[in-house]
Amino acid sequence: MIQEIAQRYFAEIERTMREVVALAPDAPDLHVMLEYPLGWVDADNRPYDKPTGKRIRPMVVLMCTEAAGGDWHDALPAAAAVEILHNFTLIHDDIQDDSPTRHGRPTVWQVWGRPNAINTGDALFTLAYIALQRLETTSTPEVVLGAWRIFNDTMLELTRGQHLDMRFEQQTGVSVDEYISMIRGKTSALLSACAQIGALVGSGDADVARHYAEFGLNLGIAFQIHDDILGIWGDEAVTGKSAATDIVSKKKSLPVLYGLSQSAKLVKVYQRPAFTDADVHEAVALLDAVDARGHAARLENDYYQRALAALDAAQPQGAAGKMLRGLAAWLFQRAY
Amino acid sequence: MIQEIAQRYFAEIERTMREVVALAPDAPDLHVMLEYPLGWVDADNRPYDKPTGKRIRPMVVLMCTEAAGGDWHDALPAAAAVEILHNFTLIHDDIQDDSPTRHGRPTVWQVWGRPNAINTGDALFTLAYIALQRLETTSTPEVVLGAWRIFNDTMLELTRGQHLDMRFEQQTGVSVDEYISMIRGKTSALLSACAQIGALVGSGDADVARHYAEFGLNLGIAFQIHDDILGIWGDEAVTGKSAATDIVSKKKSLPVLYGLSQSAKLVKVYQRPAFTDADVHEAVALLDAVDARGHAARLENDYYQRALAALDAAQPQGAAGKMLRGLAAWLFQRAY
Repeated sequence: MIQEIAQRYFAEIERTMREVVALAPDAPDLHVMLEYPLGWVDADNRPYDKPTGKRIRPMVVLMCTEAAGGDWHDALPAAAAVEILHNFTLIHDDIQDDSPTRHGRPTVWQVWGRPNAINTGDALFTLAYIALQRLETTSTPEVVLGAWRIFNDTMLELTRGQHLDMRFEQQTGVSVDEYISMIRGKTSALLSACAQIGALVGSGDADVARHYAEFGLNLGIAFQIHDDILGIWGDEAVTGKSAATDIVSKKKSLPVLYGLSQSAKLVKVYQRPAFTDADVHEAVALLDAVDARGHAARLENDYYQRALAALDAAQPQGAAGKMLRGLAAWLFQRAY
Repeated sequence: MIQEIAQRYFAEIERTMREVVALAPDAPDLHVMLEYPLGWVDADNRPYDKPTGKRIRPMVVLMCTEAAGGDWHDALPAAAAVEILHNFTLIHDDIQDDSPTRHGRPTVWQVWGRPNAINTGDALFTLAYIALQRLETTSTPEVVLGAWRIFNDTMLELTRGQHLDMRFEQQTGVSVDEYISMIRGKTSALLSACAQIGALVGSGDADVARHYAEFGLNLGIAFQIHDDILGIWGDEAVTGKSAATDIVSKKKSLPVLYGLSQSAKLVKVYQRPAFTDADVHEAVALLDAVDARGHAARLENDYYQRALAALDAAQPQGAAGKMLRGLAAWLFQRAY
């Protein structure tokens, strides 16, 4: 299923993204910094043949355009915009979290240092807006300005989520509700925007688009919880991240928050100033003892079901509704 | 003269900026991080009564709106946008340059750490776009989309300039031409955008706006050269920056580049791995010996004259042309 979707859209998404990134000014070593995180070159500017990321967000944009009755080609500028924006946030996240690797490669700050990585992120942020504005070639000014508004509001939500995420690292006693509020901004807002902008371009109808926004929001929350499980129990070879990264960095992800609320022993372990390998193993064992993984998986499923209900309410047209369900199902089949 | 201009616009610029920043989501400590760099609160969220910065860029927007025949109130959203954008760039710059102080206060990263400062910058970047989109309340969709395009292109230029600026720190033998290309992006692009967007809102005419863009571009280059002189010979009490900051950080500013091309002794001094206070004094003395300050001042004046010529070509209307000349003159009277 996902292969079918990928085949339909992937090449056009990449082509549009490349067109936009080519608009970046010519300056020595600037383009390699922009293209490396998108997976087009290696750090020495040689072609790189393992694409980073699955381009899920732009695919959601295009599927929602079709499902809302439009021609998916019209939304390609928005599809490129959300994927470029997503990659900008990853670059800044990796600096903020001190993450050494992403998709099995050194992060941008690891290769070029933090100052360049900050600037690379800022440039991709800008290119995302440039991509989005190219909707002018396919859509009415009202739709373009509407998409811009959604994009702006989404970026505010992303920074709110990121702010809370960093704050929670320092805070004791983060509740599950606080956590959900955080990921609503940090992850779900963008997936919600993908669905909403896609449907807006497809239908020109802001009310229809709002149903898709609700679908994307719940899918995003479920997706982040899934990612949290991968961050602890994921297979390094599959995820491209170091195993138990989120434990090493003491990230307050959902399973950890649940574990801390259930296990006094785990609270004590988390009071240690820095984790050794043994601490990491002990923490994971304590999480397993309270079935933190099962708890997270159940919550993930709740939001997944809400997403599917919102999709029903959106009344997607033709085969695209099926495709959206197929994508959602596939997202939650990823190996833990 | 500048007091007159300031009195006309200042309160409305501040009011519009506050309206926009108030749209940022409610999250603990997020608003203080956003308002501190704008000079509205201190680090403990208490009202702060010494405004940071002179709001020169938004004033240029509004003056150009008037000079191009419009009502300056119509351009207030754009005025707020450029000032918020400018402050975002300062926050990221200060991280990249490791600058401890700005406007006589600790920088955002000094107060809240680099990860929060990156996010604060990203949030202000977003708020700049949100401010700009509020042009919808005063202008046609064509003008709003035109302003957005200028804003996007400007941000690309800013990241190009920042990229080159950081690169030049590591590079030996930066030419004066390379340097001018860098500040064209890093500083002048934004002032050019201020003039261009202001004139676009005022006239609705993209051709008229391009003349103003040329005025702003040359004014910006002159302004940056002026700032470079201040960065070495400025009075700490006046500039709010540490004395000789740009020497301490080995910044390749125009006077230094000129000095390096004229003094083999200075080249040797700059090969030392880190500067002591004595090194800083020696470097300044060597710059004075080749009259690097006079050279920079002459180049500054060249661009200043080009800016005035471009302003003539723009044929500003009414008293606003006079005001623009007055502002330009005032900018270059700042104490070195």
